Amino acid sequence: MNKTVIEKITHIVGEKYIKSSTAQLLAYSYDATANFQRLPDLVISPGNAEEIAEVIKVCNEYKMSIIPRGSGTNLAAGTVPYDGGVVILFNRMDQILNFDKENLTITVQPGIISENLCTFVEAHGLFYPPDPSSMRISTIGGNVSENSGGLRGLKYGVTKDYVKGLQVVLPNGDILETGGKLAKDVAGYDLTSLFVGAEGTLGVVTAITLKLIPLPQYKMTSIAYFESLEDAARTVSSIIANKIIPVTLEFLDKKTISAVEQYMKIGLSTDVEAMLLLEQDGEMHQVEQDVKEMVRIAEENGALFTQIAKDAQEAEQIKTARRVALSALAKLKPTVILEDATVPRSELAKMVMRINDISEKYNVNIATFGHAGDGNLHPTCLTDLRDEEEMHRVEAAFAEIFEAALSLGGTITGEHGVGEMKAPYLEWKIGPIGINVMKNIKQTFDPNHIMNPGKVFAKETKKRVVVHGGN
Amino acid sequence: MNKTVIEKITHIVGEKYIKSSTAQLLAYSYDATANFQRLPDLVISPGNAEEIAEVIKVCNEYKMSIIPRGSGTNLAAGTVPYDGGVVILFNRMDQILNFDKENLTITVQPGIISENLCTFVEAHGLFYPPDPSSMRISTIGGNVSENSGGLRGLKYGVTKDYVKGLQVVLPNGDILETGGKLAKDVAGYDLTSLFVGAEGTLGVVTAITLKLIPLPQYKMTSIAYFESLEDAARTVSSIIANKIIPVTLEFLDKKTISAVEQYMKIGLSTDVEAMLLLEQDGEMHQVEQDVKEMVRIAEENGALFTQIAKDAQEAEQIKTARRVALSALAKLKPTVILEDATVPRSELAKMVMRINDISEKYNVNIATFGHAGDGNLHPTCLTDLRDEEEMHRVEAAFAEIFEAALSLGGTITGEHGVGEMKAPYLEWKIGPIGINVMKNIKQTFDPNHIMNPGKVFAKETKKRVVVHGGN
Repeated sequence: MNKTVIEKITHIVGEKYIKSSTAQLLAYSYDATANFQRLPDLVISPGNAEEIAEVIKVCNEYKMSIIPRGSGTNLAAGTVPYDGGVVILFNRMDQILNFDKENLTITVQPGIISENLCTFVEAHGLFYPPDPSSMRISTIGGNVSENSGGLRGLKYGVTKDYVKGLQVVLPNGDILETGGKLAKDVAGYDLTSLFVGAEGTLGVVTAITLKLIPLPQYKMTSIAYFESLEDAARTVSSIIANKIIPVTLEFLDKKTISAVEQYMKIGLSTDVEAMLLLEQDGEMHQVEQDVKEMVRIAEENGALFTQIAKDAQEAEQIKTARRVALSALAKLKPTVILEDATVPRSELAKMVMRINDISEKYNVNIATFGHAGDGNLHPTCLTDLRDEEEMHRVEAAFAEIFEAALSLGGTITGEHGVGEMKAPYLEWKIGPIGINVMKNIKQTFDPNHIMNPGKVFAKETKKRVVVHGGN
Repeated sequence: MNKTVIEKITHIVGEKYIKSSTAQLLAYSYDATANFQRLPDLVISPGNAEEIAEVIKVCNEYKMSIIPRGSGTNLAAGTVPYDGGVVILFNRMDQILNFDKENLTITVQPGIISENLCTFVEAHGLFYPPDPSSMRISTIGGNVSENSGGLRGLKYGVTKDYVKGLQVVLPNGDILETGGKLAKDVAGYDLTSLFVGAEGTLGVVTAITLKLIPLPQYKMTSIAYFESLEDAARTVSSIIANKIIPVTLEFLDKKTISAVEQYMKIGLSTDVEAMLLLEQDGEMHQVEQDVKEMVRIAEENGALFTQIAKDAQEAEQIKTARRVALSALAKLKPTVILEDATVPRSELAKMVMRINDISEKYNVNIATFGHAGDGNLHPTCLTDLRDEEEMHRVEAAFAEIFEAALSLGGTITGEHGVGEMKAPYLEWKIGPIGINVMKNIKQTFDPNHIMNPGKVFAKETKKRVVVHGGN
């Protein structure tokens, strides 16, 4: 990296907040995605939006890349450097700027840890629902840039449903303010939504106003085991068809259940094909009615065994079983690749069976769990990066999984983002016209392509896989 | 209009579906906004997206304007021609394309009447919440392009919260598909949200996939009268502070109540300063609890008189009182100008008082009603277009009302859109950087500025008004 650039950036941010030794840079050369690693040139911790604006101006002048990074929990290589450049950290920008109980909003800096925000508002009887599995370490800024989902998405939606306003430093150094605390605002284009999920490719988010809702008073959790995937999937469809929208409706397949039980020893039944985790929250009377009805529906659809958690502790244990799924699977093999192919929920059973068929076809080990109510599955491949031959089969299997999801009316990514990893597949979902529109938008914001390059847009789209077997 | 253009368009759409006589064009020279009128060159009723794409290509070639138009209920001159051009009607594109009870979505053509869609899904136990006051005649396409609100926005949000996917004909004739039925999808930028509320300036929406939710089983309505605006506003804040989010929380001031009572003779108290209409829906037990609690809060905050509707008929009568507010006021004077300045709900009382002060200062007659829970007010000026001197005062008063809303952290338009009418004020809200970003987006989609010109972007921003008296 140009010495002048380093000097200019150091002058803006202060030497204390700059990392440039190889050992330091290494720590920011990868994220939670397997198989992607490249060194940045510099890692900085600016103190405010104005400093970021100055840094961006310098980077724009010298055509240096900017990689905004929260806690690096990204699963699509969205925060891995592409061609060196400056990683921006938000560890000094983690404050609550405004908490407005009357208007039910909170304005925060991007570096605040997601769970800390949730805990803070819950202490005031309020609720910020998006709960990505990484929430204990992920930042709200990262959640916004990836439009993160979570276990409560079915009832409460995802991050974008709660972002009401943003402050964004644009690639030209302008500081844009969008939206605000208002319940309704139609003054111009919805720029807020454009930045949510843009994966840092259009600007650097420096402040976020979020909508809050009243904290539900009561919740109740249950599980149901099934001897067939179809029974579990039919239960999911039937719950929705009965006009119940539970807060959580999660699915674990046999392999995932076994891995979790092996890891946690909490007494899960491991001789079943599928498990559903069902939770409702809200007013007590309604919650009890919904959970009983969901259990009845599960039994009607052939559940082998159902259980309503008798207290908060038991409920927490059941939910932890789901939350640790990835960690439990990660114990089994050196490399774990977690995907998030998503289908309309009516296609859930078909999709799980397709994944199993593809897993067999390519002789790769795939366990599947995920947000059944959202049709958002996490086929998780247990493999080993060092086994090059197997890695080729893994890649081919995932390409076919994306193709299968698309053929069922689904998408290549439900909640993880496109990043660098799925960029070559994006055109499969949105088509050449969609890609063209997105490229034009990117171009107008960031003509020098300094903002998180290599993400979302691929140099080349992957050749499509021919999939046999229709919808 | 160029004869060749007319011939080409006639060839695409068919002579039967073209209107071009002056009498016919006159009917499409205005919308529901007072004081805006200009003739189009042609009015067409295409049959599908492909025809629209062909028409747009011709218009792009000859630099002719396109004005997409639903039922013309727009209140910001969003559907009034600007420099002639082709008005596109959707009366032949009003079909339900797909109703998916398992995934809780419905895909429709833009021309379907909003209320017809609601009635259809409600017959299946499902619910599409956005309910603009014009829903009996407005189209879903218009609602999407304006991101319409309504009376149920506080609890259920606005149109954009339900749009999951779009088909849009772009100004270059490309047909773009965005989103879909999926509960979660983060494949690329959120193009869907960019078109919602874009007022037809970026493309022509030709199909819409909407999210549905289960129909609430029960609802309960009540009213509360107050002798002061502050008491009413404090009630609103206190309801939210007590963690109750009612479906409807509407406000009518003294002038509006009188006009409605005069119009409907339903026994409203006319010797009070303000009335709140409170409604909750959901599970019976919860609804009863919430409504009783809201009534208690109203009484605690000095309500003179409260009443819970004893049955559906009485509830309907109360709600009709709110729904007819505009029609009732319209009876009083030849011209009615309805605005939608919006503030954070905590600033409601201040805003109503500012409106009253401004009304006195300019000696204009303004009645105010609106969505109190959303901070979305409808100051409504009763005037006469033919009185030029008064119209100048009306314009000055509204400019000061916008300025007052902004100084309280609000916006110039909560749910009506910018259109041509409020375009000169947009920069007051989003600033020169916001305008610049929006202009760049417009430019990249529509370099020839054929899509609904004169809307959103003004030739010149109004000079700002100096407002005395702070927040």
